[in-house]
Amino acid sequence: MSNPNPSPSSSSSAPIRFGIIGCADIARKLSRAILLSPNTTLHALGSRSLSKAQAFAKSNNYPPSTKLYASYDAVLDDPDVDAVYIPLPTSLHLTWAVAAARKGKHVLLEKPTALNVAELDQIIDACEEGGVQFMDGTMWTHHPRTRVMSDFLQDSQRFGQLHYVQTCFSFAADNDFLENDIRVSPDLDALGALGDCGWYCIRASLFAANYELPKSVTALRNPIKNKAGVLLSCGASLHWEDGRVATFNCSFLSHLTMNISAVGTKGTLRVTDFIIPYEEKSASFSTLSNGGFGEMTLAWKQKPSEHIVNTELPQEVVMVREFSTLVEGIKNRGLAPEKKWPTLTRKTQLVIDAVVASIAQGFEPIQI
Amino acid sequence: MSNPNPSPSSSSSAPIRFGIIGCADIARKLSRAILLSPNTTLHALGSRSLSKAQAFAKSNNYPPSTKLYASYDAVLDDPDVDAVYIPLPTSLHLTWAVAAARKGKHVLLEKPTALNVAELDQIIDACEEGGVQFMDGTMWTHHPRTRVMSDFLQDSQRFGQLHYVQTCFSFAADNDFLENDIRVSPDLDALGALGDCGWYCIRASLFAANYELPKSVTALRNPIKNKAGVLLSCGASLHWEDGRVATFNCSFLSHLTMNISAVGTKGTLRVTDFIIPYEEKSASFSTLSNGGFGEMTLAWKQKPSEHIVNTELPQEVVMVREFSTLVEGIKNRGLAPEKKWPTLTRKTQLVIDAVVASIAQGFEPIQI
Repeated sequence: MSNPNPSPSSSSSAPIRFGIIGCADIARKLSRAILLSPNTTLHALGSRSLSKAQAFAKSNNYPPSTKLYASYDAVLDDPDVDAVYIPLPTSLHLTWAVAAARKGKHVLLEKPTALNVAELDQIIDACEEGGVQFMDGTMWTHHPRTRVMSDFLQDSQRFGQLHYVQTCFSFAADNDFLENDIRVSPDLDALGALGDCGWYCIRASLFAANYELPKSVTALRNPIKNKAGVLLSCGASLHWEDGRVATFNCSFLSHLTMNISAVGTKGTLRVTDFIIPYEEKSASFSTLSNGGFGEMTLAWKQKPSEHIVNTELPQEVVMVREFSTLVEGIKNRGLAPEKKWPTLTRKTQLVIDAVVASIAQGFEPIQI
Repeated sequence: MSNPNPSPSSSSSAPIRFGIIGCADIARKLSRAILLSPNTTLHALGSRSLSKAQAFAKSNNYPPSTKLYASYDAVLDDPDVDAVYIPLPTSLHLTWAVAAARKGKHVLLEKPTALNVAELDQIIDACEEGGVQFMDGTMWTHHPRTRVMSDFLQDSQRFGQLHYVQTCFSFAADNDFLENDIRVSPDLDALGALGDCGWYCIRASLFAANYELPKSVTALRNPIKNKAGVLLSCGASLHWEDGRVATFNCSFLSHLTMNISAVGTKGTLRVTDFIIPYEEKSASFSTLSNGGFGEMTLAWKQKPSEHIVNTELPQEVVMVREFSTLVEGIKNRGLAPEKKWPTLTRKTQLVIDAVVASIAQGFEPIQI
C-alpha cells in the first residue's frame, strides 16, 4: 500500500484561475475538480446563453465570485483567466482550443482532442506559438495508481518486457444516448465510440508499451456503426516491430467494462477499473510475477497479489493540480511548457487516425 | 458459493478400465485422475519400451495389478481395456485414435486433437463406426465452475447477449522447452502454441458464444515462429454474424496468464485461471451486472462480486468420471455415444484450422 501523491510545488503561489467554456455534463466533474484542487480557482464560465451558465453555476455550487458569460469568447477575453478547460464537442475543439491558445490561455482539452491528427497539430502548434501548456483530459493517467502500475511494468524482474496487452472500454448507452448524444452525431463527435471509449484503450496500450508508438494498426473487422456512419463499437490490434501486440474492444453497446491485462516476459498486470476507479480514494490492481505451477500442474505456486493505492485527491483533481502546477511554472517562473503531454496526446490521436484509416481501407494494416 | 458436482450414475457398476498409451508428462496427471475417479480403474499402460512403462508406473504409484506393455498395440489388444487415454504427440493422434476406435476402445484424446479437421474427422468417424465415445482432454470444461459461469453467461438478466470476449493463454517456456519440446517440433506438434495454448482460448471463446461457430476468423498479424516454422506466439479475432467478436493471444514466450473477459449487454464475467485453477478444490470468477456510475461518474455504484465454486474432485477427475459415465452407459445400458463432445472438439479444431489458413493467406479473413 502506498500513497505517492506528490506535493504541488506551487502551493505558495497565487492560484491558477480557470475558465470553462461549455456546460457539458463532464464539466460538472471538472468544475468540482477545479474547486477541490489546492492550486486553482474557478474564475469564469461561458455558455452560449447566460441563463444556462447561471443554472449550471448554481447547480454545481460555483462560488459567487465566478464570472458568468454568455459566450465562449468572453471567457477567452477575460484577462484574469489563466487557463481554460474545453469540454465542447470534438468538432469544435480546433476552433476554440486554437482561439484560447492565441489569447494566451493554457488549454486543458477534453478527449478525443480532435477529429484527426491534422487538426490536433494545429491546436498543438497554436499552444506552442502561444507559449501555453497543453494537456488532454485523460484523467486516469494522473491517478497515483497509474504511477505504481508503471513502476511494475518497467520492472525488469517483476514484469520484464511487454509481450501483449488486451484492453477494453464499453458501456451500454441507453436509447436516448444512442439517438441524441453528441457522441453519436457525425457533425459533433464523428469518432463515436472510438473517440470516446477507444481513446482510453489506445492510451492504455501505449502506456503498457512505455508510450512507444506501434509500427502498424489494423482495425478488427465488422465494426458497428449507426445510420449516420458513426462508430458504436469497434476494435483494433496494434503491432510493434519487436512482436509486441495490443488488442482492444470499445463500444457504446456493451456492459460497463474497463480492463487492462498486460503480459510481459516475467509478469502480468490486471486492472478492471482503469478509467474510473470503483472508489474515489482508493484503487487497486493485481499482479503476478514469475508465476508457475506446482507438481503435476495441479495448482499454481502462488496467486496474484492485489495492490491498493490510496489517493487523498480524486484523479481528476490530481490532473487539474498537475496541469496548474505546470501553468504556474510558465506564468511565474519562466519555465517552458511540458512537452510530454501534447506528445502523449498526439500518439493517441495518431493511433485513432490509423484505426479510422484501416476501417476505411478494408481493414488493411496502416503503418504509423 | 455452490457445489454442483453431479453424482455419477454408474456408481454401482463395475469400473471402467483405462489403458494409457504413451508416458507423456501430462499422463502423470491423468493417471492420478483415473486412480481418483470413483468409476474407473487404471488397467494398462503401454510404452514403446517396457522399462519406461515400469519406471513411469512406479513413479506414479500405479497399483501392482496394472498391466505394463512394451507397445501401444498391446494395450489396444487387451480385451479388458474399455477405454484409452491418448497423450501422444499430435501427429500420432490420427493413427492411434483410429486404431483404438477400430478395436472398440473408447477414446479420451489429448488436445490439440489433430493437425487439422480432416484428420479429426477420420478420428471422429472411426469412433462413430466403432460405437465408442470420443472426448478431448480439455479439462477446464469439466470443472463445476464452468457450469456456474455458463449459467451466468446464459442469464438474460445478469449477462444478456454476448458482445465481445477477450481471452489469452501464455506461459514463458524455458530454453530447453523452446529447443526440444515436442510442442515446438514441426514433425510432432506442428500447431505449436496455437494448438497447445490457443486451443484453450478458442474453446473459451466458443464457450462464451454458447458454442456457436463464428462466421469468420482473422489471424493477428506478425505471429512469431521458430526456425522450423512452428508458431510460438500468435492471436486471432473471431467474428459472428451478429457483431459478436472474440480476440485472443496465445504464446510460449510470455508470462503464465490465462484470462477470459466476456462482456454482454448487461454483464461482465472475468476469470484469470480458467485452464488450471489457482487451487485444486476451490475456484472463483468475478461478475458484475447492470453496472453503472454514481453521481458525476465519481465512482461506481457497485463493485464486481466474486463467486467461489468448490469441487470435491479436481477438474481432470471430473472429466475422467464424466467420460467413464458415458462409457458405462454405452457398455452396460445400450446408450449411444454422446455427440456433444466430438462436436465441441470439431468446432475448436475448425477455428484452429481457420487461424492457420488466415496466417498462410496473409491475414485474410477465413470464412467458416
